[in-house]
Amino acid sequence: MKSDSPFNAQAKRQNFLREALEERRLPSLLVTNLTNIAYLTGFRGSAGVALFNPREGVLWVDPRYSLQAQQEAWGVEVIEERKGLHKAVGAWLKSNKVRQVGYEEVHLTCAEFSRLREGAGGRVKFLPVTGLVEQLRAVKDEEEVARIRGAGRITVEVFEKVLGSVKPGVAESELVAEIEYQMRKKGAEGAAFETIVASGARAALPHARVSRKLLRENELVIFDLGAILGTYAADMSRTVYVGQPPRRVRSLYNAVVEAQEKAVKAALPGVRAGDVDAVARRSLAGRGLARLFTHSTGHGVGLQIHEMPRLGRGEKDRLQSGHVVTVEPGVYLQGWGGIRVEDTILVAPDGPEVLTPAPKDKWIVE
Amino acid sequence: MKSDSPFNAQAKRQNFLREALEERRLPSLLVTNLTNIAYLTGFRGSAGVALFNPREGVLWVDPRYSLQAQQEAWGVEVIEERKGLHKAVGAWLKSNKVRQVGYEEVHLTCAEFSRLREGAGGRVKFLPVTGLVEQLRAVKDEEEVARIRGAGRITVEVFEKVLGSVKPGVAESELVAEIEYQMRKKGAEGAAFETIVASGARAALPHARVSRKLLRENELVIFDLGAILGTYAADMSRTVYVGQPPRRVRSLYNAVVEAQEKAVKAALPGVRAGDVDAVARRSLAGRGLARLFTHSTGHGVGLQIHEMPRLGRGEKDRLQSGHVVTVEPGVYLQGWGGIRVEDTILVAPDGPEVLTPAPKDKWIVE
Repeated sequence: MKSDSPFNAQAKRQNFLREALEERRLPSLLVTNLTNIAYLTGFRGSAGVALFNPREGVLWVDPRYSLQAQQEAWGVEVIEERKGLHKAVGAWLKSNKVRQVGYEEVHLTCAEFSRLREGAGGRVKFLPVTGLVEQLRAVKDEEEVARIRGAGRITVEVFEKVLGSVKPGVAESELVAEIEYQMRKKGAEGAAFETIVASGARAALPHARVSRKLLRENELVIFDLGAILGTYAADMSRTVYVGQPPRRVRSLYNAVVEAQEKAVKAALPGVRAGDVDAVARRSLAGRGLARLFTHSTGHGVGLQIHEMPRLGRGEKDRLQSGHVVTVEPGVYLQGWGGIRVEDTILVAPDGPEVLTPAPKDKWIVE
Repeated sequence: MKSDSPFNAQAKRQNFLREALEERRLPSLLVTNLTNIAYLTGFRGSAGVALFNPREGVLWVDPRYSLQAQQEAWGVEVIEERKGLHKAVGAWLKSNKVRQVGYEEVHLTCAEFSRLREGAGGRVKFLPVTGLVEQLRAVKDEEEVARIRGAGRITVEVFEKVLGSVKPGVAESELVAEIEYQMRKKGAEGAAFETIVASGARAALPHARVSRKLLRENELVIFDLGAILGTYAADMSRTVYVGQPPRRVRSLYNAVVEAQEKAVKAALPGVRAGDVDAVARRSLAGRGLARLFTHSTGHGVGLQIHEMPRLGRGEKDRLQSGHVVTVEPGVYLQGWGGIRVEDTILVAPDGPEVLTPAPKDKWIVE
């Protein structure tokens, strides 16, 4: 164990987890998602299983990670297991006479579950659990927000720098290389996801992959990028036009910015996630563009690039202070192109803080 | 369907799969691993489920990927499903009166399996299957080898270029940034895995993460890098010494290179994977270093960075022509440092072809 101060982040998170277990009347929980394990204990290896009950925490790792787990993990007894973590965990449950245990059903494979039950030998009842740790993770503490703010600042700086290289004849892939290089130069651990630079008709695919396509005159280019800093991600999109945009493109661009800014303003504590989505959708509908907005308005961001809450149609969950989410409406026209404007924002009582404050008015590159 | 030529790679792979199913007396297989789906059909979306039986192939995707699946996927009927792929697949099994179906137990979560069974409604028998498509993937065709060779060439060029920046005072993270930037500049899609530059005592961790540590005089530095080209990966490690290495370090370095080269020579078709591992281990044991070699000798490389076969202690699988594997013995001393030398090689009848032919004798940087 790294430290036994009860004031560290892991201690707080494990307390919250135990409260959540009590609320759901779960006697214990197996945590198999590695990001959840990192969040709860600080251990950041590529394999491991953790268990929490009201009295104790246990972390099983293989020999590669024994030393690292001893150094990094807080609040758990580290058990080194040479062969088969899941079977060993099952055997532990059996010998500790555990009768009921929750497991993360979206983070456990059928093969792992089968080893687990094999080890447990039939007497343990396994209860599927979804999104419990993820719900804790959705609400960020100050340190987490500071890291995302830092990741956002790097993301903005890199975008503004790379904007100087945007011109006809440059390949999308060159811009991607430049973006990720600059992120690292500015101290980021890397890119939080595959950076997107999608120009012309390729911008019509919301999840376009990077290509060697060259930028041309009179095209839209969508940039979707985010740095990782201190293991936390930021996420931002901006769209630029190479050349003098026709009136139709200008009005589309303004409509997207307007929808985005209205939705950002609507993202207040207590508001339903689905209502923020509705604000963006209604704004575009007012311009006759609702049909061209083909995805959700946003998603949580943190240790992973897609977290809770989801800002999608009809989502009932209410936003809370400390939620960090993207707001990213867009319009897409098959064969022609697309426009997306996205910020990562912090939900706060006095109104949202934009964590990726790159300008939206410098979108015309000549 | 992209093309109905029976001579394309996907057609061959689906034929091999059907033969493998017949051998195992499996009437059909659900494929849920996205890399396996990409390998078999060409579809490269981030969500989807495929099914193959002797007569047909089916691919379920959500609306985001309908168009892409129609364009990319070969040999399968594409079904668009708006809500819940797995439940829909289950329902299809039920309405098509499928009685037995294999599923990839290491590539299906408990939650997905539960939706699948829900949709199927109790009459379908699900049979766990492991490594079936992965075994096909292990044997590369000419086109696949050409891509890995290309990825290897870029990896070597980048390493040689970046070697020019290795000197005291440079941060590990700067070298990582430079490496991944140069990969992209040379046409790679990116890095196949988190590039490792681990210097001094940090080189004692076989899976060290990148840090801002500065290189110092009289330190070992392990580089572990690989580019992706045409979706295929290469993997290479080299170790350099900054300064004039003491005699002890020279002899350690030479021992690792010797072990590595002996193991490469031993990697012939028909040889057991475990025997290649034993060659490396015996070579190091001859210098009294067996205890310092704390991981396996190698692993397959292809669409993913870790594939079959595994070159580990006691592995019984035999190497085949067309296998592409790493050979990467190393020695590690806690608190002091480490040395690893790794190549990606093609197993071939006339002896292995080294696909990452960077020199090993230019390891002293002054």
